[in-house]
Amino acid sequence: ARPKVGYFYTGKNTLGMLMEEISAITVQDLQSVPVAIKHDKSAYEAVVTMFLEDVGTVFVLDEEGMLNGILSRKDLLKAAINNNDLRDIPVVMVMTPISKIIVATPDEPAASAARRLIDNEIDCLPVVKIIDEKKRMYQVLGRITKTNFTRLLVDLAEGKGGNYHNNEA
Amino acid sequence: ARPKVGYFYTGKNTLGMLMEEISAITVQDLQSVPVAIKHDKSAYEAVVTMFLEDVGTVFVLDEEGMLNGILSRKDLLKAAINNNDLRDIPVVMVMTPISKIIVATPDEPAASAARRLIDNEIDCLPVVKIIDEKKRMYQVLGRITKTNFTRLLVDLAEGKGGNYHNNEA
Repeated sequence: ARPKVGYFYTGKNTLGMLMEEISAITVQDLQSVPVAIKHDKSAYEAVVTMFLEDVGTVFVLDEEGMLNGILSRKDLLKAAINNNDLRDIPVVMVMTPISKIIVATPDEPAASAARRLIDNEIDCLPVVKIIDEKKRMYQVLGRITKTNFTRLLVDLAEGKGGNYHNNEA
Repeated sequence: ARPKVGYFYTGKNTLGMLMEEISAITVQDLQSVPVAIKHDKSAYEAVVTMFLEDVGTVFVLDEEGMLNGILSRKDLLKAAINNNDLRDIPVVMVMTPISKIIVATPDEPAASAARRLIDNEIDCLPVVKIIDEKKRMYQVLGRITKTNFTRLLVDLAEGKGGNYHNNEA
């Protein structure tokens, strides 16, 4: 184990150490509790759930509790804009379907999940247990959002980055 | 100037160096271009602007171009949910008014702006030039969002943190 304080040779600059610190943090160190509704609900019920739980993303689950789709505020705003009654619109009509969903897994580095959020211009990834990759059967364990990453940045800036990995050497 | 590579005594641990690296990054190093509409527009026009520009927050400006309010997707979704015609709703009825707005300034540390986002549970801060603090007269220079902070985290994790502060010793 390298010493944490004092004289030491790293062979890296401070940015290299920064990379190392951040890469030790995994998705499950940051993830939030998922909020979900069943796939037979209306867009109106999705909006109500979104406001009740104060989240920006709601997961849609099938009968077996597997991930079916994702609803963002943007999806619902788009549905609401044309004077539609959201009570008449099934969530499956406005959600991003499973075929287009990008997921995260608990053990991957948080930074790689953050990179997928940025590259795909989305706000939230479902954190999943992969049941069957080919059939895209995913069990939802959590959600990871730009809020989680912003909070991590604040913690790192305030010297609390160590809270995220307790098993450090 | 401290050496960047090799043997050196810091008196700090790596988390301390991490703090130092991050605290050198300011709001203006990260900020995005602001998107704004005039205060006499409708909520419908605000939604159209939001989708056209693909942003989650639109600033509302008065006749003199000073900040009047902020509209989020959440504000507009709340307005849309009750079968209202958004064309009949003025933006001033749904925006967060200037009296409740939290701002950022270009020269402050990015991490302190990130902290205000987290503490106040908001997605975006206007980056402003303060014209008159007492009268809350602010000229909008940019916006800083959770996306900016997530991107910074990705860059730090990938060793590109140095791009943010060129004038480092």
